[in-house]
Amino acid sequence: MSSARLFHSIEGTFQMQHGSIVNPVIAYEKWGQLNSQKSNAVALFTGLSPSAHAASSAEDSSPGWWEGMIGPDRPIDTNKFFVVCINSLGSCFGSTGPASINPDTGEPYRLDFPVLTIEDIASAGHEVIKSLGIAKLYAVIGASMGGMTALAYSILFPAASESLVSISAARCTLPFGIALRSIQREMIRNDPLWQKGNYAGKGPISGMRLARKLGMVTYRSAAEWEKRFGRERVSEERKTDDAFCIDFEVESYMEAHANKFIGTFDANCYLYLSRSMDLFDAADHGGSLEAGLNRVGARRILIAGVRSDHLFPAHQQRELAVGLDRDDRQVSYVNLHSIYGHDSFLVDMDRFRPLISDFFMQEIKPSVVPMVRKLNV
Amino acid sequence: MSSARLFHSIEGTFQMQHGSIVNPVIAYEKWGQLNSQKSNAVALFTGLSPSAHAASSAEDSSPGWWEGMIGPDRPIDTNKFFVVCINSLGSCFGSTGPASINPDTGEPYRLDFPVLTIEDIASAGHEVIKSLGIAKLYAVIGASMGGMTALAYSILFPAASESLVSISAARCTLPFGIALRSIQREMIRNDPLWQKGNYAGKGPISGMRLARKLGMVTYRSAAEWEKRFGRERVSEERKTDDAFCIDFEVESYMEAHANKFIGTFDANCYLYLSRSMDLFDAADHGGSLEAGLNRVGARRILIAGVRSDHLFPAHQQRELAVGLDRDDRQVSYVNLHSIYGHDSFLVDMDRFRPLISDFFMQEIKPSVVPMVRKLNV
Repeated sequence: MSSARLFHSIEGTFQMQHGSIVNPVIAYEKWGQLNSQKSNAVALFTGLSPSAHAASSAEDSSPGWWEGMIGPDRPIDTNKFFVVCINSLGSCFGSTGPASINPDTGEPYRLDFPVLTIEDIASAGHEVIKSLGIAKLYAVIGASMGGMTALAYSILFPAASESLVSISAARCTLPFGIALRSIQREMIRNDPLWQKGNYAGKGPISGMRLARKLGMVTYRSAAEWEKRFGRERVSEERKTDDAFCIDFEVESYMEAHANKFIGTFDANCYLYLSRSMDLFDAADHGGSLEAGLNRVGARRILIAGVRSDHLFPAHQQRELAVGLDRDDRQVSYVNLHSIYGHDSFLVDMDRFRPLISDFFMQEIKPSVVPMVRKLNV
Repeated sequence: MSSARLFHSIEGTFQMQHGSIVNPVIAYEKWGQLNSQKSNAVALFTGLSPSAHAASSAEDSSPGWWEGMIGPDRPIDTNKFFVVCINSLGSCFGSTGPASINPDTGEPYRLDFPVLTIEDIASAGHEVIKSLGIAKLYAVIGASMGGMTALAYSILFPAASESLVSISAARCTLPFGIALRSIQREMIRNDPLWQKGNYAGKGPISGMRLARKLGMVTYRSAAEWEKRFGRERVSEERKTDDAFCIDFEVESYMEAHANKFIGTFDANCYLYLSRSMDLFDAADHGGSLEAGLNRVGARRILIAGVRSDHLFPAHQQRELAVGLDRDDRQVSYVNLHSIYGHDSFLVDMDRFRPLISDFFMQEIKPSVVPMVRKLNV
């Protein structure tokens, strides 16, 4: 299968918050056509683990991670919009990160990669957008880590986006989320195959397997799993022989998901990206949350999430929406009912589609779908 | 310090659900005096990790894990009640378990110990109670795993207890809890020092550290940690040098708790006890939940928990209370407000004390504290 992946090389020294790298590359994919006024561009930032392949295209027909959201006549309608999905700086799907070769040494950066921040990811993404000749985006959008990155983008480059959509994200991670991610990182670092980051080959796959399983628990919800698995057991022939083998269906489900993940994601990249989410706090910009959110340049804003999200709970989305609400901004806040937890934006897309569709139809048919202020908090 | 620990030897073969062991020993502690009618005895079962040292005594003045609940003029008043706390079969604080010597081999049982069930723990505890000459308990009580064990006790030995108190427990573990415990067990089993259970010395301490940290996340609540730690950082001098070091206070807190735990708890015992909680389901007794709960012999029942518990959520306590409600039983169900999550019964004891106190004063002063049916579900 051919790839739709494109690359932008950032020439020279790229300054990060905690160090610098030389000539980094950022991978991205694009859909639709940039109009002559260059006013219809949408930048999409991703969660921790996806690549830039958010949707299928002529060059790569495999379904993307947000396939139902992006395309002709889909909520982010590529008949109207020029969509660019950016693989995060620090990731391992084409963009420069800890797994990339450090030109100074000819070896992978590994732990010599500077501490990564969400702001760095936003800044690197901004370089891609500028390289495409886009001075002002129609919208910057993202979910989970991508929702934080979209917020950082609008704080750091207030004139660079007309609107902002942040889904299932927050102004910062709370200690519960920090604790969970800290445990995930420790699982990887404790794996003897991690070798303090200097692994060869597949590296710490058992640590990565554990981290992914714990990720599944934080991304989904107890209610969904109760409905889906209950206390169902795996069939006898699927049981393994070892003590404490896989016995319940939910254990088998986690194992299958983890097995898909390991081998595809670089462990050091995971550690860096995971930490970047702990470190981000919009309040670090200007010394207070109010000051940080005042820097946001977007004038149309949608903050959305679901009630069953325990990684970025609804009250954090409300906090963000309330903090952003100002007379010169149109802020919508939507708290959806979904039992799918943090991952609802991926697995319960039908619930998000009308919301995203409304937001993106707004400028196209303003009289048909008036924006309703839902700041009823 | 002298110990208050007592031991009951179960002579001969002790039949477990999935095998048998010979001459097991069960450790326990006791407080108060058994009255001449032997009608004032209370059996207390514990959570996964505590010993039988629930409270201080003349023999051991160190505070117990439920110090505020048991003693003279405390909610379980040892001026009136004879209290026996039982160290679970399978544990490592005096009772026979995987870390004990198998008399057949002269070596520790390790993974040759039969699969452990909550029913086994209840049955072994029942042997202790019988050995003390007690035909019918005033009450059987427990929280978390102990609450499951108390329920199992009243199902297996319906005539052996007048009343039942189950706190922050459930009729079974839901897949969310199974998933979390499965990950904890995998952390331990993945530690190369586990050696498939055949470790010497301290064994898999890094796996145990991780399991304890994840335990902390499941035992407490996001709201408590948000209030307690926020995004506070550790001071520079407390940071370690390694990449991805402890940076946030919540990480330091987990590390300190885990360090207290490792070395005190045997890893194989942890694995067995953890699995026993996954396996228990009251519905396994008689083929349905209704049938299982119909076997419960207790006539006065208190089912209590807290709203912030995500390991045994409130709806599970409600399910248990509703299932137990019958005309010939007096069932109370209380859903407390506490931000301390599953561990509220330990760390927010003031909220539980009036409840337990009311329950245990009932037979003593029935006219003063009438039992209120709170089955308002």
